[in-house]
Amino acid sequence: MTKQTRIGIVGYGNIGKGVADAIKQSPDMILAGVFTRRDPQALTTLHPNIPFMPLADAKNQVDNIDVMILCGGSATDLPTQTPMMAKYFTTVDSFDTHAKIPEYFEQVDEVATEHRNVSIISVGWDPGLFSIQRLLAESILPQGVTYTFWGDGVSQGHSDAIRRVDGVEAGIQYTRPIKEAMERVRKGENPTLYAADMHERVCYVVPKEGANLEKIEQAICTMPHYFDAYRTTVHFITKEELESKHNGMPHGGFVIRSGYTNDESQQLLEFALKLDSNPAFTAAVLVAYARAAHRLKQEGFSGAKTVFDIAPRYLSPEKDHALRKRLL
Amino acid sequence: MTKQTRIGIVGYGNIGKGVADAIKQSPDMILAGVFTRRDPQALTTLHPNIPFMPLADAKNQVDNIDVMILCGGSATDLPTQTPMMAKYFTTVDSFDTHAKIPEYFEQVDEVATEHRNVSIISVGWDPGLFSIQRLLAESILPQGVTYTFWGDGVSQGHSDAIRRVDGVEAGIQYTRPIKEAMERVRKGENPTLYAADMHERVCYVVPKEGANLEKIEQAICTMPHYFDAYRTTVHFITKEELESKHNGMPHGGFVIRSGYTNDESQQLLEFALKLDSNPAFTAAVLVAYARAAHRLKQEGFSGAKTVFDIAPRYLSPEKDHALRKRLL
Repeated sequence: MTKQTRIGIVGYGNIGKGVADAIKQSPDMILAGVFTRRDPQALTTLHPNIPFMPLADAKNQVDNIDVMILCGGSATDLPTQTPMMAKYFTTVDSFDTHAKIPEYFEQVDEVATEHRNVSIISVGWDPGLFSIQRLLAESILPQGVTYTFWGDGVSQGHSDAIRRVDGVEAGIQYTRPIKEAMERVRKGENPTLYAADMHERVCYVVPKEGANLEKIEQAICTMPHYFDAYRTTVHFITKEELESKHNGMPHGGFVIRSGYTNDESQQLLEFALKLDSNPAFTAAVLVAYARAAHRLKQEGFSGAKTVFDIAPRYLSPEKDHALRKRLL
Repeated sequence: MTKQTRIGIVGYGNIGKGVADAIKQSPDMILAGVFTRRDPQALTTLHPNIPFMPLADAKNQVDNIDVMILCGGSATDLPTQTPMMAKYFTTVDSFDTHAKIPEYFEQVDEVATEHRNVSIISVGWDPGLFSIQRLLAESILPQGVTYTFWGDGVSQGHSDAIRRVDGVEAGIQYTRPIKEAMERVRKGENPTLYAADMHERVCYVVPKEGANLEKIEQAICTMPHYFDAYRTTVHFITKEELESKHNGMPHGGFVIRSGYTNDESQQLLEFALKLDSNPAFTAAVLVAYARAAHRLKQEGFSGAKTVFDIAPRYLSPEKDHALRKRLL
């Protein structure tokens, strides 16, 4: 058997835990270290099978780790951690602030190229798998329109916004695609649709004792940016119900391109994800791309890459001839 | 503007016509020649804007064509034409006899490597886009099952089989996914399903005058291999109805993978195509991969390739930084 690829994880939040889990499902990989800013000893007590180490020691592990998967947040962690790690390691991350990707790419590319490492950035499902589908669909059907619908899924930002409303004790917000909009797209109408035409917002709210429910509902539905432009529904529930029925992190969505070939045939491509756990799935995508990153590095490539730069064959542990025989 | 990629077409059937159409939607490409075994003069009279040439003259056009798209059939045309053309040209074809792909790959690879050309084989939607989805889904969710459903779509082989039945004047057969099977898959049951559990066969038959309809229906439904194992329905219609309502070549299908990450979350990926015209869509995929083939050849690559070997970026006419900004 070929030597296992040794994976390091930076950050042990939901995605980091998911990466550790995904490695267990990949016999060609082994978890070589989890680097954390927290106290490694305390974490080891809780999770005795995970090799925790202090983040500051990462650079001493260059000889023991093939790919470092960065599992921090896009706002503050990744913009500093990825360029720092790319000096020493081949890296994969899930940087997902769409507007800042071009500048982040340049920043990481400079370091990775200089240190001859491969850094695959913005891996996950959006950016990530959804981006691939958008590119494939548009390249094949240049005359058409692409739509991305998100949901059913929990939006962390909108859940936080609900919790800041006067009289609210706890709450969660689900983004849902509007079925009528999806049906218009699938029919090939190619309508002009803005985010608020495509998604509705469903809120489950635990009110504080004695709070005015009407006022809460009004405050949520009229909140600028977050809710005012959207079809919004507020359901009041008990704390028990919130904890038992809304404790998951489901998400998903749809990329649909409807186009017309020159013979006026409507051609429709649709890609859908339905995820019980958003972070566990994102982690699984990161691990597949870590396999690709390691192979590219071994083949002599370097610099920043995105999912657009990775041929599908690099994602599978199987040999090319086996893939052609079994999956083509 | 960069120089246009000059495309040659071998064979002017439904797919060849579709390729000519798809090139019109691609400003970075130009149709440089259509090579045919038929009389080029006669075809030119019918289609005055298409530059027809005799197939035997193709090898004299090496300096005028960047990529040759082979649009013949998999049974007899491609196994001889692709290796012949790969001596002179970078090629793309839609070889779709799944069981023979490994041996076809080796055969084409030998010629293309020797003559330093790139040959992308088995391009289209299955094999092709569906193969990519199977590979992506399996690499990301190693613990799971992948299902491919075909339809709604016309099966040429089954339509031919109907027409051979005694008393049948004309007919067409549609393959349809069985909705209940799809729902079981989507729920994550990961059932064991054979082709006949997943698809039903719907036949529209024009009987000859005075034919025994009951006998026709029985002959179709009990036909070995083609129909006997399947849920089969036979509708008798008039010749007029056949010609007005069943003159298209729709097809499509679904690739669904349902898997479980280690936290026991069900994660579902689904890719669907709904095509008004199967050959026009296959042609559009061929043209996108012709773009990739030309770029790979320019970058110094050679040999046989499949869709597994092509990074998504090669399919788009846009620059990498623009793709990252707009689609990632």
